Amino acid sequence: MGQSRKLRILTGDRPTGKLHLGHYVGTLANRVRLQDSYDCFFLVADLHMLTTRFERDILAETNQNIRDVVIDNLSVGIDPERSTYVLQSLVPQIPEIALIFSNLVTVPRLQRVPTLKDMMRDLEIEQPSMGLLNYPVLQAADILSVRADVVPVGKDQASHLEVTRELARRFNALYGEGTLPEPETLIGDVPTLIGIDGQAKASKSLGNAILLSDDVKTVEQKVRGMYTDPARIRADIPGNVEGNPVFIYHDAFNDDVAEVDDLKERYRQGKVGDVEVKRKLAAAINRFLEPVRARRAELEARPGLVAEILEAGSERAREEAAETLRMIKDAMGIAWKG
Amino acid sequence: MGQSRKLRILTGDRPTGKLHLGHYVGTLANRVRLQDSYDCFFLVADLHMLTTRFERDILAETNQNIRDVVIDNLSVGIDPERSTYVLQSLVPQIPEIALIFSNLVTVPRLQRVPTLKDMMRDLEIEQPSMGLLNYPVLQAADILSVRADVVPVGKDQASHLEVTRELARRFNALYGEGTLPEPETLIGDVPTLIGIDGQAKASKSLGNAILLSDDVKTVEQKVRGMYTDPARIRADIPGNVEGNPVFIYHDAFNDDVAEVDDLKERYRQGKVGDVEVKRKLAAAINRFLEPVRARRAELEARPGLVAEILEAGSERAREEAAETLRMIKDAMGIAWKG
Repeated sequence: MGQSRKLRILTGDRPTGKLHLGHYVGTLANRVRLQDSYDCFFLVADLHMLTTRFERDILAETNQNIRDVVIDNLSVGIDPERSTYVLQSLVPQIPEIALIFSNLVTVPRLQRVPTLKDMMRDLEIEQPSMGLLNYPVLQAADILSVRADVVPVGKDQASHLEVTRELARRFNALYGEGTLPEPETLIGDVPTLIGIDGQAKASKSLGNAILLSDDVKTVEQKVRGMYTDPARIRADIPGNVEGNPVFIYHDAFNDDVAEVDDLKERYRQGKVGDVEVKRKLAAAINRFLEPVRARRAELEARPGLVAEILEAGSERAREEAAETLRMIKDAMGIAWKG
Repeated sequence: MGQSRKLRILTGDRPTGKLHLGHYVGTLANRVRLQDSYDCFFLVADLHMLTTRFERDILAETNQNIRDVVIDNLSVGIDPERSTYVLQSLVPQIPEIALIFSNLVTVPRLQRVPTLKDMMRDLEIEQPSMGLLNYPVLQAADILSVRADVVPVGKDQASHLEVTRELARRFNALYGEGTLPEPETLIGDVPTLIGIDGQAKASKSLGNAILLSDDVKTVEQKVRGMYTDPARIRADIPGNVEGNPVFIYHDAFNDDVAEVDDLKERYRQGKVGDVEVKRKLAAAINRFLEPVRARRAELEARPGLVAEILEAGSERAREEAAETLRMIKDAMGIAWKG
């Protein structure tokens, strides 16, 4: 292609708490891979968070949660020199762009977005707030504010991004082809990590996740309590490896493949105790987390660093978003000229 | 009360074209009266305009329409030294505040706002856009961004303002009583002026209105074509004064009450021709418009004046709105502290 400019990516996290191994497997590992080939914008989506979390006592943790999510991202090896970290609420153009976009999409269209129904069911919400219904429009503003070319999404998020693409197409059809990019979906393999209690998904709120910030002892303790094959009440009973959380975690985090193969073999034959399997898993996870902890310690030794990274990144995003807003207003013919 | 600070009012216009005598009777005359007793913010609501007007060729007139609406306001005697003119799109905090508010109101609540149904019927819209549904939320952000105490509204707008009051109450209940004012409704007499064609309402789009910017000849010509009592096919037939546009306009704009009484008397008796009634009405309207035209000429002789007024006013509104946004974020606990 002889392409000189890197394609731009925007993706992000709602600052709802510390990240865990499930986030690593699902998105962070992918971000580490993407950071070299793409111009990455990572959005800390604090305005999105408000769509479902607005109680005052929960919001009191926002500042800390924002710091945590950035530190968690950086600790797994995302380089802030190469990527841009943005705090959504520090980019005032995003709500402006969202407001303009809101005129280009109908209420029934947004009511048909499948994730809306999923969220309402999960959160036991009977009547959606305007903010919740507007979620995909705000997301479109996030993405298009920096004119991202590509958005990595899981399959369940693809329907959100379809709204972004529709808005870009509708805008361009009304006001000028080529004004806004129609971002491509990079539907990645976004694997879900099983919970340590055997539930389908590790989640901080369910308390069944190992945090990226857990220390050695906490990891050991959590792994000791992990759910395994319940039929295996003694070490000499042949066990099931498939779908067994302990082995899923071994596969995901143990770099000693020979050890994992050996354990699986003996587990199937009833020749290894849970204690050994778990001890080796805890050791493997702690090996995996060792450089993560080292980077975290470095980051935390430099107070003000996270703020610096976020503010510099948000400044860059503001410049991009101001340019986008200018392009939008010029195309529409609504820029104030005095 | 011993009150030292003037109560603050916010009201405004969508910049959809030149204003006419119906606007004068309905709202502008009231603004002239309010400007002494209140700290008035007059909003040129260009973002609101986008909820129903978004075609490119219509938007091409936006800049001129904004200028026109300000000049029309000033020409009837609103003093820009005492009042604050604000261009909505120059206050980026308004969309931010609207976005935060959107999480505090449900979709069904907004679907029940009666003016939404009216607008959809009038505009023949089958599926409302998000922007249209969100109209009352954006209006709440307009009003609360400057912490207005009072909002003058017509009866048909009172339901919009109820959303503003609910949002202020909900916000205060969640995040701290007294944070946001709950603005009072100043339900004014907002009279409607009949169209010169006899239709219920004078309207620029119906072409049945006399513009504040019409010149002497245009006024004479429009008045000559006015609808009167259709049963009166000759001057000697007794005519109906009640509900007759010509006499409604005489009552509204002719400062010579004796002349109006005399004309009514003779009209009822079939002793005056339409030509005389209309000639005197045109003269009266032109007398009324004389100082309006003089002020307009002064304003237009100073290029850059409207921009200066709007930009200075928007700067003041931005300062107020930035303060409001700070109060909102502090109360919610979501201000970024680094």
